[in-house]
Amino acid sequence: MRTINIGIIGFGTVGSGTAQVLHDQAELITKRTGAKIVLKSILVRTKRVLPDEFSDVPVMVDEDAFFGDPELDIIVELIGGIEPAKSYILRAINGKKHVVTANKALISACGVEIFAAAAENNVEVGFEGSVAGGIPIIKTFKEGLAANRIESILGILNGTANYILSEMTNKGLPFAEVLKTAQDLGYAEADPTYDVEGIDTAHKLAILMTMAYGMEVDVSAITTEGITKIEPIDITLGKEFGYRIKLLAVSRNHGEHIEARVQPTLLPDDHLLAAVNGPFNAVHIKGDMVGDVLLYGPGAGKMATGSAVAADIIDISRNILHGAENRVSCLSYLPEFIQPRRITPIAELECPFYFRFTTLDKPSVLAKISGILGRHNISIESVIQQGQLDDGTVPIVMRTHSSCEADVEKALEEIEALAIVTAPVVKIRIFV
Amino acid sequence: MRTINIGIIGFGTVGSGTAQVLHDQAELITKRTGAKIVLKSILVRTKRVLPDEFSDVPVMVDEDAFFGDPELDIIVELIGGIEPAKSYILRAINGKKHVVTANKALISACGVEIFAAAAENNVEVGFEGSVAGGIPIIKTFKEGLAANRIESILGILNGTANYILSEMTNKGLPFAEVLKTAQDLGYAEADPTYDVEGIDTAHKLAILMTMAYGMEVDVSAITTEGITKIEPIDITLGKEFGYRIKLLAVSRNHGEHIEARVQPTLLPDDHLLAAVNGPFNAVHIKGDMVGDVLLYGPGAGKMATGSAVAADIIDISRNILHGAENRVSCLSYLPEFIQPRRITPIAELECPFYFRFTTLDKPSVLAKISGILGRHNISIESVIQQGQLDDGTVPIVMRTHSSCEADVEKALEEIEALAIVTAPVVKIRIFV
Repeated sequence: MRTINIGIIGFGTVGSGTAQVLHDQAELITKRTGAKIVLKSILVRTKRVLPDEFSDVPVMVDEDAFFGDPELDIIVELIGGIEPAKSYILRAINGKKHVVTANKALISACGVEIFAAAAENNVEVGFEGSVAGGIPIIKTFKEGLAANRIESILGILNGTANYILSEMTNKGLPFAEVLKTAQDLGYAEADPTYDVEGIDTAHKLAILMTMAYGMEVDVSAITTEGITKIEPIDITLGKEFGYRIKLLAVSRNHGEHIEARVQPTLLPDDHLLAAVNGPFNAVHIKGDMVGDVLLYGPGAGKMATGSAVAADIIDISRNILHGAENRVSCLSYLPEFIQPRRITPIAELECPFYFRFTTLDKPSVLAKISGILGRHNISIESVIQQGQLDDGTVPIVMRTHSSCEADVEKALEEIEALAIVTAPVVKIRIFV
Repeated sequence: MRTINIGIIGFGTVGSGTAQVLHDQAELITKRTGAKIVLKSILVRTKRVLPDEFSDVPVMVDEDAFFGDPELDIIVELIGGIEPAKSYILRAINGKKHVVTANKALISACGVEIFAAAAENNVEVGFEGSVAGGIPIIKTFKEGLAANRIESILGILNGTANYILSEMTNKGLPFAEVLKTAQDLGYAEADPTYDVEGIDTAHKLAILMTMAYGMEVDVSAITTEGITKIEPIDITLGKEFGYRIKLLAVSRNHGEHIEARVQPTLLPDDHLLAAVNGPFNAVHIKGDMVGDVLLYGPGAGKMATGSAVAADIIDISRNILHGAENRVSCLSYLPEFIQPRRITPIAELECPFYFRFTTLDKPSVLAKISGILGRHNISIESVIQQGQLDDGTVPIVMRTHSSCEADVEKALEEIEALAIVTAPVVKIRIFV
């Protein structure tokens, strides 16, 4: 029986999870592939003792020895971040090794360079684990929906942010308090910026857009807004309007240009994505042939991401066994068909909005605000004005009809300049 | 550029949908595969004129001419049913042609024979379109979750039945009336037996079980019950208990034996599958590594199923281009590892139950019924007793704690023999 030798770089959460999957499922994987997939070596920064089941796997700190092993078929990078991950991956590729990674920051930033090097060396790069944890979403774009022009992608792609919003929704607690608990429980990092500011979600959306549309994506062109400014009152009032707040990645294929944004968004209660709670992820795809498809599952975690990384290892192993390397293009389209596409400037987009104004309890406040909105072509669908808060201010909440982002920006600038408006306007997009 | 030639058998809903997908997406498919996929011929029973876009595709009624074309790479069977579909598929396989089909009845009944013939001739058989329409569920089992021992499968796999239950739920209408409308709208067949009696769902569950567990499945061993006896009152009272009724395919991997059943089932309101409405399908999978994954999408339809059939065509084409035929085993496991597994006898299973008793308005009815239940180890969790109906009977509705199917059967037999019980007991399983 053919043996496929795996070398793993990094033995943190996902690295040890992947090793565990390969160990625990060795027999199952052989039954499915006809090959023996063997963890042959592990490269780490600092020498250490591994759990018993891996006691016969050499743990190396010597990069030359690790990369120089001619018997390795696939090198699996699971340290994350840009460097040294990028150098390791390029070294593996130049040494004619196939690569598997779960590194979304690297793939979204340097994918073009990495995939070009892989093509030159006729090796594969698998990255199923980089988006939406255990959900086989990359494979779905590349293969399952390969006969579809993708019309839109909606994603809940960050488990930490979704967990925080779910807890805020269920318990009525403020952001900072939920974040603290999440950190204590290990659901959020000490520095949660990437997760709560939407950056991680934007990286993942960029990867999905490449798969979907055959385009190179500059992550910085994706308008990205986090959830740190969401307050319990917005969640409560959103509920009264029939919505739930989610940190939503949205991309729509407008043909000439592609919409792409990551923002807290009010989703109608009866939308399937509104029911995705806790650390789970989900991706809703509209294909021109298939219609609406949704994939849901764990967005992170040792074994769930290990499952996705192992799926890539199995995929590449099947190709090695059949001499079919690069049977499916890394980028879902052949490299010569990957094209630049214009990202729609945010100012050109339209959607209904939720606004919360913090105002002084003076007559004609509502008239002034709605007057400004009207002059900027923003029409109000409904208003909730509540009583005075302890600090003497009055919150006014509005839901608008579909309005242009550029108009909204100008209107809110004028409104925030009013003396009767005492805090920045809270603005949340409503999904339609 | 390499050309892959396709021959389609049948030009009904799915046949014409598949032809349309290949036609409309020709350029896209080339960009993804590097090949030209060409519809070269169509075999039909009666000669006819096709829509303009297919005017240059020969429509044949001569089987020998169709199967004898040495240039065909893949033959796509889309006529459904056992014969002549089976003979056509075997003829294609014996002629060394790859096969794609969406025929769940055939695959679930004769898969073993068909896959053995395919292995002998080193050709592939794709059947993504046979389960859950456009959802890439077969690929997910074979590849995306290949590193997982599957612990359970829950599925809403029949769009017609789900549409009928959704309409009954939303509009409070009786089964017969909704069925009639569904037939008028073309959502249900003139003879709806397969859909509403759970037979179609059982076929699909059998296919998924083979993919998941590496077992041969005898469809007749799957306990199958339809939705024809569900009444609006059960939907209403189910709601009061916090449930929704779905025609659910359930399979659990108990190691030594495998649970498999298709039954109307009360699902908790907050279960994701409870939110799957109308003609949509969804499959919830629990993998030992990945945890909970759900796939949702259109369960049928010309273009959605066409998308799945085209995905198989693309998959096989990619294998042809790389000389990697049978890169993934048709059955998800290598044939030598497909094993018989015992299906759990229904009498051994346990779950909570919903019972609706139709009784005369006499004293001690409740005492008699609950006495019998108690003697059979069935403990009641809650009871709703409503007022007399127009026909003078009184409905008593109960939710039980987890109870053994064998006990339930015996108890209900005794209860139905009581003179005060005037109609068969309605019994619906509650999902836990």
